[in-house]
Formats: sequence, structure tokens, C-alpha cells
Amino acid sequence: MTDTLPANLQQAVNQWSACLGAEHVLRDAAAIAARERATFASAHRIAAIVRPGSVAEVQQCMGIATELRVPVYPVSSGRNWGYGSSLPASDGNVLLDLSRMNRILEINTRLAYATIEPGVTQGQLLAALQAVEPPLWLDATGSSPDCSIIGNTVERGFGHTPYGDHFGHACALQVVLPNGELVETGFGQFPGAKATAVYRWGVGPAIDGLFTQSNLGVVTRMTAWLMPKPEYFQAFFFRAKEEALEPIVEALRTLRLEGSLRSAVHFVNAHKVISSTGRYPWDAADGAGRLPESVMQQLIHQWGCEAWNGSGALYGTPAQVSAARRRVVELLRPQVTELRFLDDRLIRIAGRLRTPYKWFTGVDLTQAMALVKPVYELMKGIPTRQMLASAYWRKRAVPEDADPDRDRCGLIWSNAVCPAEAGEVRRMAALVEQVFAKHPFEPAMSMTLRTERAIDNIISITYDRDRPGEDARAMMCHDELVGTLMDAGFYPYRLGVHSMEHAAARRDGAARALMRQLKAMLDPAGILAPGRYSG
Amino acid sequence: MTDTLPANLQQAVNQWSACLGAEHVLRDAAAIAARERATFASAHRIAAIVRPGSVAEVQQCMGIATELRVPVYPVSSGRNWGYGSSLPASDGNVLLDLSRMNRILEINTRLAYATIEPGVTQGQLLAALQAVEPPLWLDATGSSPDCSIIGNTVERGFGHTPYGDHFGHACALQVVLPNGELVETGFGQFPGAKATAVYRWGVGPAIDGLFTQSNLGVVTRMTAWLMPKPEYFQAFFFRAKEEALEPIVEALRTLRLEGSLRSAVHFVNAHKVISSTGRYPWDAADGAGRLPESVMQQLIHQWGCEAWNGSGALYGTPAQVSAARRRVVELLRPQVTELRFLDDRLIRIAGRLRTPYKWFTGVDLTQAMALVKPVYELMKGIPTRQMLASAYWRKRAVPEDADPDRDRCGLIWSNAVCPAEAGEVRRMAALVEQVFAKHPFEPAMSMTLRTERAIDNIISITYDRDRPGEDARAMMCHDELVGTLMDAGFYPYRLGVHSMEHAAARRDGAARALMRQLKAMLDPAGILAPGRYSG
Repeated sequence: MTDTLPANLQQAVNQWSACLGAEHVLRDAAAIAARERATFASAHRIAAIVRPGSVAEVQQCMGIATELRVPVYPVSSGRNWGYGSSLPASDGNVLLDLSRMNRILEINTRLAYATIEPGVTQGQLLAALQAVEPPLWLDATGSSPDCSIIGNTVERGFGHTPYGDHFGHACALQVVLPNGELVETGFGQFPGAKATAVYRWGVGPAIDGLFTQSNLGVVTRMTAWLMPKPEYFQAFFFRAKEEALEPIVEALRTLRLEGSLRSAVHFVNAHKVISSTGRYPWDAADGAGRLPESVMQQLIHQWGCEAWNGSGALYGTPAQVSAARRRVVELLRPQVTELRFLDDRLIRIAGRLRTPYKWFTGVDLTQAMALVKPVYELMKGIPTRQMLASAYWRKRAVPEDADPDRDRCGLIWSNAVCPAEAGEVRRMAALVEQVFAKHPFEPAMSMTLRTERAIDNIISITYDRDRPGEDARAMMCHDELVGTLMDAGFYPYRLGVHSMEHAAARRDGAARALMRQLKAMLDPAGILAPGRYSG
Repeated sequence: MTDTLPANLQQAVNQWSACLGAEHVLRDAAAIAARERATFASAHRIAAIVRPGSVAEVQQCMGIATELRVPVYPVSSGRNWGYGSSLPASDGNVLLDLSRMNRILEINTRLAYATIEPGVTQGQLLAALQAVEPPLWLDATGSSPDCSIIGNTVERGFGHTPYGDHFGHACALQVVLPNGELVETGFGQFPGAKATAVYRWGVGPAIDGLFTQSNLGVVTRMTAWLMPKPEYFQAFFFRAKEEALEPIVEALRTLRLEGSLRSAVHFVNAHKVISSTGRYPWDAADGAGRLPESVMQQLIHQWGCEAWNGSGALYGTPAQVSAARRRVVELLRPQVTELRFLDDRLIRIAGRLRTPYKWFTGVDLTQAMALVKPVYELMKGIPTRQMLASAYWRKRAVPEDADPDRDRCGLIWSNAVCPAEAGEVRRMAALVEQVFAKHPFEPAMSMTLRTERAIDNIISITYDRDRPGEDARAMMCHDELVGTLMDAGFYPYRLGVHSMEHAAARRDGAARALMRQLKAMLDPAGILAPGRYSG
């Protein structure tokens, strides 16, 4: 292969090899092919993989890339499933794989934070936290224990505890600029500053936002704030009829705004429940189209779900939880078919009973635990592999070592942010239904009250990449979906490599010009992640 | 005067007059002199005052300034007392006075926010909120009802409710760039976006931080999130001995981290209590130096204060407040001499009693209300004029229409951020005491747990500008103070025109270079607030 390389790329490979050791500059077809796979089709090819082991090496790599004008695309763990996995946002990039930089640099139990490198995964930090006293909880995304915390934070991803807004609970970024210079954010810019890890803004212009959802720098270190383990934790689960959407939104917004709920609450439609937890019913349907309504009704009955199925949690002393619970009951119960609370004690008791513990109507808690436990644990900041299984919805089985990229699972995420207001949420949901009515996929929606005022609707298109033509059909559905939602004012909080140009093209002229100026200033050679969040 | 103007400034004045009307371009000596006054000495002179009334006019003003290379300095209300009032950060600027832009563009009671212009003051928004249902609370700084909300937010100032971090509870900035272009932040960059006012980050790089504590753009509109009025509000007050500082810090951090306290808690030393609420005891001391210890002891006894005097508040349903209160009692009471709770009902009852209601030992609540009420109301988001009086500490009296700039009050603020850890806070406080021991001023300290992990120490130097030599002596004290604190790693969260170069000079080389690049990119003519946050 080497002889086919353009001269500048060959030279870069040589220089990177000299810096990092040849074993950390990969050019073999198998390694590259593995990173070119995603959960949807893409024509973007990867030219090589470079694996720096330290910030100094990242600086060298970037300096070489800028000098020789070779585009590089940083990934932390590369598990950005549904948004592009490891795939660069344009063709011919060299993958800058940061997974070797996986040191937990500090865990501070008194001030409740961890300072980490980009290769540190959710599972790794969880394990490290299990060894400290007093105990601290992380906030995990639903993705998997193998996902990078920094990777998710710079994408402004979210989790499900009171620390669910990841970028809002992080500070002190260390960033390698495209020219190889090293810049710190916040008080990290000042020698010996004591508050670097505990205070976000520092003094002077706050630049950290520039390095999220961007291609302006490579984040090589970050402080993530952590939550002290609460004395008591109680989750709640509810189910509700279709027409309850509006009053549920109003009740949940009120509860969040008044502070009774301090964490993300989320509720999903029946398609999402069924595709997350079951397999496509091959006997009852043929996998060629959206599940027939009659089959859906059977599955809804079988899984004991409803049109909307929600969960949330309460954190604090027993008295605090009980006071908050009272408000949840007061505002939410009238809107829903059923509302159930769950804590560790009830789980233990139910496990010991000889007769089934009836939890929801027609649902035994012990049976329901397969469905409930991953969500329950996520709300305690414990990442799960369970969610991965949902990528296999239209596959025949989920292998032990699930790898959606390898197994040709089709999964395309999209999402839209909406004010937490009944009418707007209904309008958004109806648009999603309308679009999916024209496409052979299930409209799986997961709505999250990420903040007091905003709901994210995460919509997945799940399909089988081995089915001929399905990649194209799924992407058509996606494109129509995001176009329709943006036309109506519902823009995404986050993009995948498949959707970056859709949103970037809608930015107004002045903002687009400013983004271009920033890019030209920080990356005049245009070598860092071309096309990332800039279309 | 006009004939002495440099040609470019004269031309700018002509063009601004043509755009805004001559009545909004002020050149008369009295108007200018009024804006050149601050609460400390400064050699910065103002060349003219320009008063645009709309964003289009701000754009025109900036375009003219850039074209003709005339430096302009934006102020909203110009009441940045102790940090420079209306004073530009360098000499010869034209003041861009935004106070005419004082429209409240929207109050959304369901989603709990207000979208405002820079001239909107705390008092103005409070009055507007008193007319809406359901009721919303703002978060006010201690400064005065006449302060601009946007002005304080872009300085990343703070208040005392759960929405105390002002920039953390604001979004959707509209910014005029130095060249006159208009840029929006967050989803405001996307046509018809519905979540602009409710979701901070938008999609793509987050640029809003660039326009806080900077000279990169003029913020002409902002959305401030507001807190729904809680069902029940209860404040608490405590006093404690000097040696209690360490356990108090540990207790308050724990309470904030666990979520029992959700708002800023603050505690001040005796010097701060006395100088905030009383007048300098001219009969007992001569005003030439720091109060003698014996006089201090008398005043401490007279005001019923202690070495440390704190306050905080609980917000929620009665049950939630009661559960939180239990934790406050459990953790804080063992550390303090006295801990008292206060709510509207107790205030009413005490007011009706015939005999004094003993609140703190030796302190009758009705008497104490003069001292307590401004703090109590601030924690409900009600701004007060009371704090203004503290600028008159070394004056003989506070006039009805207090104006510290006009009345030659000496007031220099400085501040330092510290991790919320006992040892660090003690170290910081000891450094402050050490510096003041060498200077003839009272070391008034006000410590605020702004976040779960960080304490801001706000330190005031209060003096009489009419006393010969005192301006210079006070600034010497300030300079030594901030130098000593920064040497020890305690950097300020915010600067005044008197301190900008101190901090900027300590920024590391890479960050300084990046700041310079940003400035050169957005303001190539260097005309927007030269020296502001850049030394």
C-alpha cells in the first residue's frame, strides 16, 4: 500500500513513526477497515491510524499534520455508535486515536471531581471510583461502559443523574491546537491557580465552548465533576396513554423547574421500549417494513408497556427524597396510568419472595427487572451494555461480544431540542410520526428533560445493513426527518458525521462567517477534522 | 472643545450625530466629568458619550468606530462601583452608553425566562415580574436596583438564589461585533429555532463565553432564566468564632455538594458586618487608620456579630425545606455559636409582639432587621440599596440619593477564588489579614460558596477619597493584595479597570497568544474597549 500514498502523507507517516514508534502508526488494511465501519454507510476512507500516548506526542502529531497538510480526525474511544463510530467527517483523514491516553490523573473525593485523559472510559472511571471513600458517583451515558468520557463531553452528550449535562459539569480543558500549541481553559491558564478544577470560567474570555462540537482543537485532559453518593436513592417509573403526552410534559417541567426533580427524566414511546429490549418478531413480521399495528399491540401487551413509558429518580436523604416524592405523586400521578417507585430495598425484597411481586398491573417486578435494571442503574451513573442490544433489533440475535459496527447493525441517531411545553412537544412528536409513516422503520423516540426548560427527542432508525438497499432507505428516512424537524424549528443538540452538513448549512450568514474565521485562525492549514460540525 | 478633537474623532462624532441625532452624542464637560468619576482614582479620560437606542444603531456606531479607528467602551448602566463604575479600561475612549436600550422583550412565565436589553436594570425587571402570574423570581446582585442585568452577567457576576451564577443561567446572546456585524449565540444562529431561549449550547462550537469578560463584542440582548417563586422560603443566619472557619467551610461544602443547599451561602467577617451597616466611629477613632482592636471589640458587641457571620436560604415546599433544614442543623449547628432560621411568618409575628423577640443572644429581631432584611430579601432575589451605604463607611453620612462616584466614596473591590476546602480558605484569609496589617484599611471579607466546590472571597477597601493621599494608599493596598493572592494561587473571578493588567500579565504564553489572535481577528482596528481583560 505504501507506494500508493501521496508524498505528504508518506512523509507524515514517516515522521509520526519516528516520534511515536512504528507500532503506533498503523497502515494495515485490517486495522483500517475495522475503523472505517460504522452503523450506517459512509464513503469516508481512513488513510492511516496514529496512536499518540501522551500530550507531547499529540502536539508532535498535530505539528507534523499541519506542516505537511495531512487531515487528521481525533477519536477517543471511537464508540460514537449511531453518530459515526470512529468515522471521520470527510474522506481521506488519518485517525488520531487517543485511546492510549487513558490515565485517571486525579480523583479528589473532598471536592468531588476526577481529572482524566481522553482514553478514560465510563467503565474505567466507575471501577476506580468503587475504590474511593467517601463514595462518588459518575454520570454515565446510555451508550456502554467502553465509551470515552471526554469524547462524550466534547460532543455535549448527557446522562441521567443530576450531573447529566456533561459539559455543564466539566471544566479545565487542556487542548492541543492544530499547530501543536497547548492551551488550557479557565484558571488553568494561570500558573499555580488553585481553583482550576473547581471553578469553570476562570478570568477573562471563556474559551472552553470553542472546543466542543468543533474542529478547532484536540482535548487531551479535562476535569469532570462527580456527585457524592446520596444517602438514599429512589427511582420512579410510569406509563401513560398517548393523550397523556401534554399533561406529562407540563407536570415534569413544573417538577424540574421547582427543583423537586434535579436530574434528567425521560420517557419513551412503545416502539422504543420494544426495540430496546426485544428482538424483531420475525415470525409475525418479515423485517421488510415497520411492524404492523396488530403485532405492535401484541408486543405492547407482552412487554407491559404503554404509549409513553417514563423514568426518573430522586436523590438525597430519606426525608428529602420523601418530600420530593410527594410532589412527584401530586403532579404526575393524575396524568399517568401507573406510577411506581423502586429502591434497592424493594428489589431485594422482591427477589426473596416466593410469589411474584406485582409491580405494574400485569407485570411482575422480578421479570420486569431485565427491562428496568439498566435504566435503574443508569440513574445511579452505572453504565450498561444493555443499550447496545437495541442496535440488534432487526438482527436475529445479539452475540456475547456485541459490536454493532462489525455485525452490520444499522443504527442512525438523530435528535431535536424542543422547549418543554406540551404543544411544542406534541408538534415535534407528530412530525416524527409523519415522516416515519413514509419509511419502513419504527419511529423509536426517547424524550429527555435534560434541563428545566428543554426536552431532547432522541430518535433512532434501527435496521439491518445486510438487507440490500436498506442503508440508502434508512439514510433517506434520516435526511427527511432532520430536514422536517429543522424546518419546524426543532434543531439537533448534536450531530453525527452523517448529519453535519444538514445543520451547518442552516446557520445564518454572520455566524457561518464567524465559524469560518475561527477555523482559519486556529487551523489555517485546515487539517483538523475537516467538515466536523462545519458541513 | 470641538476644535481640539483629533480629526478621526471629530469625524466619528459627526457621523454618530447624523445616525443617532445630535442629542445622543454628548461632548459637554459636565456630562463627561460625571462618567469619569469612579470610587477610586483613575487617569482614564472619556472623549465623548454615544447613546444608541437600538441594536441597529449600535451596529452603525461600531461600524463608524472601526472605520475611523476611534476606541469605544460599552457600558450598560455604568454602576460597576468598586470595579470602575463607567470608566473605560484605557484613556481616551468614547463611552458607548447602552442605557437607552432598556426594553424587556419577553417574559415567558411557563418556561421561566426573560429576554432583555442591556439597559434593563434589576429593579426594572423585578417590577415587571411583580405583574406576572405564576410569579417568577429574579436573581439579584448585592449592588443596587439600578444595575444592569446584562452588564453584571457579562462580568460573570453572581447573586444569592439557586440562580446565583448569572452567566450559567443565561443564554442566547445577541452580539454586535467591532465591525458592526450581528452574531447570535446558541440556537439563535438558526432561523426559526424554537429552543433558543431554553437551551444554552445550540449546536456546533459554543461561542457565548467569548463575549463575557472580554472586549470582543457588545452584547445587545440576552435571555436570563428565572426561578419560579417557591412555595416556601426560609433563610438561616449563623455566627461563629474565628476558629470555626475550617469546620464551617467543610460543613457548607458538604451541604452544597449533597444538594441540601442549592444557593450561594455566604459568610462575612466582623469588619464586613460593621462597615456594611454602621458608620466609621469618628468619636472613637480618627479615620486615619484601621479601627483599633478595642473599638472593634466594642462594635462587635454593639452589632451582635462574631468573627464570622453567615447566611443562606432554603427553597421549596414546606416538606422539602424542612428536610433540608434538618441537614443544615445537623452539619452546621455543631460548628457555630448560634444558628437561627427566619421566614416571613416569624418576621410578622416578631413585628406584632409587645416585648422584644430574642433572636440571637442579646439581639432583638426587630432591631436586627435593619441588618438582616437586605440579606433576607437578596436571597429572594430582591435587590437592595442598603449595600450602597457600605461605600460611605468612612464618610460622615449617607445622603438620601446616595451616589458613591459623586460623593467621592473610596471603594476598591478585589476578589479571589478558592477551592471550598478548610485549609485553602484559611490560607487565603490569612494572606488577606497579612496584607491589610500593613495598610490603614479594614480587611472586610465576604466569602461566598458560589458553587458546590468554589468559594469567592470578595474583599473591599473602603476609604474617603477626600482625605489627601488616600487614593494612592488604597491602590497600593489593593495591588499588594491581589499580587499576594495570585502568588499563592488565588486568582480573581472578575477584574476592575484598576486590576485588568495584573491578572492578564499572569496568563501563560499560549493562552495570551490565543487571546491576542482572537482580538486581532474580531477587532483588527483594536477599537473595542482596549485593555479590557487584556491588560
